[in-house]
Amino acid sequence: VPAILRAVSDQGPTRVLLTGAGGYLGSQAIAPLLAAGYEVHGVGRQPGGPGSIPWHAVDLLDERATRALVHEIGATHLLHLAWFTAHGAFWSASENLDWVGASLRLLRAFVDAGGRRAVVAGTCAEYDWRMTDAGCREIDRNGRAASPTNPATLYGVAKHSTHAVARAFAAEAGFSLAWGRIFLLYGLGEDERRLVPQVALRLLRGAPAPTSDGRQVRDFMHVCDVAAGFVALLDSDVEGPVNIASGEGIPMAEVISMIGVSTGRPDLLRIGELSRREGEPDRLVADVGRLREEVGFQPTIGLADGIAETVAWWRTRLGT
Amino acid sequence: VPAILRAVSDQGPTRVLLTGAGGYLGSQAIAPLLAAGYEVHGVGRQPGGPGSIPWHAVDLLDERATRALVHEIGATHLLHLAWFTAHGAFWSASENLDWVGASLRLLRAFVDAGGRRAVVAGTCAEYDWRMTDAGCREIDRNGRAASPTNPATLYGVAKHSTHAVARAFAAEAGFSLAWGRIFLLYGLGEDERRLVPQVALRLLRGAPAPTSDGRQVRDFMHVCDVAAGFVALLDSDVEGPVNIASGEGIPMAEVISMIGVSTGRPDLLRIGELSRREGEPDRLVADVGRLREEVGFQPTIGLADGIAETVAWWRTRLGT
Repeated sequence: VPAILRAVSDQGPTRVLLTGAGGYLGSQAIAPLLAAGYEVHGVGRQPGGPGSIPWHAVDLLDERATRALVHEIGATHLLHLAWFTAHGAFWSASENLDWVGASLRLLRAFVDAGGRRAVVAGTCAEYDWRMTDAGCREIDRNGRAASPTNPATLYGVAKHSTHAVARAFAAEAGFSLAWGRIFLLYGLGEDERRLVPQVALRLLRGAPAPTSDGRQVRDFMHVCDVAAGFVALLDSDVEGPVNIASGEGIPMAEVISMIGVSTGRPDLLRIGELSRREGEPDRLVADVGRLREEVGFQPTIGLADGIAETVAWWRTRLGT
Repeated sequence: VPAILRAVSDQGPTRVLLTGAGGYLGSQAIAPLLAAGYEVHGVGRQPGGPGSIPWHAVDLLDERATRALVHEIGATHLLHLAWFTAHGAFWSASENLDWVGASLRLLRAFVDAGGRRAVVAGTCAEYDWRMTDAGCREIDRNGRAASPTNPATLYGVAKHSTHAVARAFAAEAGFSLAWGRIFLLYGLGEDERRLVPQVALRLLRGAPAPTSDGRQVRDFMHVCDVAAGFVALLDSDVEGPVNIASGEGIPMAEVISMIGVSTGRPDLLRIGELSRREGEPDRLVADVGRLREEVGFQPTIGLADGIAETVAWWRTRLGT
């Protein structure tokens, strides 16, 4: 019996509060949540929403409004994806402090209002990037030790600390909590200044695309698979940190080459013209044992197909 | 040249915002702050204050009021001692989540308003209590490794996580931050339900005082010394975690016996009648190398004298 049906039969309907519902990742979580049978309430800063679900325009940094909303909805489940995510700036911005507080307030209000299970977005930046060559494992498992966590950025520290407090709170307050660590995502709707859109848009516009040597090995997952992975995690009983990732290490240069193929302009790629960002690890790939075996989730979108689809989406947006 | 005089001559007057100024520890910090030449602004939940300093009745959980206050005062220094401290309850209370957020908001507002140095109260509960037999060392120092931190309580996790985020924020925002870890304090004004007042009051009232076997070794410091230690730390350039403690391990039974002597009723002690609290370590004593050598602070109140003074203070309050 799927967890969702058990929950419905045992404890009444399951209603999920989805934060960041207007965002890059959150907007892709709506469809799999509905497909899993949840009553979905979306929260975003802007009014509107997709029309398919009840929508609440609330700034989660506003404590009173957040508390009122959470008590009004009375959700059994919380999928908290909202955070400060402004491109580039999010790594070191003071807003990270606000989102630690806002996330803890949200969790507390959710539990006060009877919430039973919460899943929150974490990050691969929680791991110690000096020690990721052997992969990133969330917990001791199958006789292998967890990878050390030691975030080097304010963003990573803020996320990791939020998890530490949330986990201790879950133990005291008696609700179920999981923490989904995101690696690299890509796909429709991504910020234009990030790697995949930037390269795709340059090539589609016929401009050269300078990149780093691309030897860094990364774990890419399509944003729709990441969102579906979060929903599968929410719909499971798994607690603690869980990598939401593909588990496959791909050199960045390979992804860049796929964009070249999909756009038909590999001739415009200038791989190696830029230097790498400092402090970036050579290899950052998730161990996905928990996601595959405990949650039972497999991504469905292969990288080449996903890149082709993403390029096609940007092509449509450009009208070319 | 003392730091305070350097600061005055180099960068204008030093004005400190003291939070928890109406509390057990914070109220004792006012005199040493004034003695060190600071212009002291006290913040407490209740109106009033001691009259010797400007007083601001503000609830630090109120974001707007806190931000307005911090910008109005424009302090160069922050001594943040406020937290949720209700006896017993504070270890596991949900309010710990609120104080993580409130503390980070306060720090951010302080820095936005031009603040340069902040000292915040941490706790010995940040250390891994399963591994404190060799003492609690804050950092690698003199060829010896830092003691592991691994708080077992929501309070300890909340404090430790606040420090992690605050430290990463300090590195980004470029202000000076120290984190004073408190061990056991005692002395006038302590909550009546805590060990020293409870035993003292029972004996002063002629009632038997049952306690545990008291073999746990602890690090006791008089609240006035703890407050003076915080002021010395604030007035130094030392950054990172610093134990504010005596460095002397005393069996609890010895402290209890001192109370017996000071009250004149050692016959009423019932040492060993109660069992110890679960999860408490045998030994919890600070390494005070940083406080002594880097900050240059020595406590002035010996334990026997401090206990005698504390008993005398309670005797006056009872009118006996």
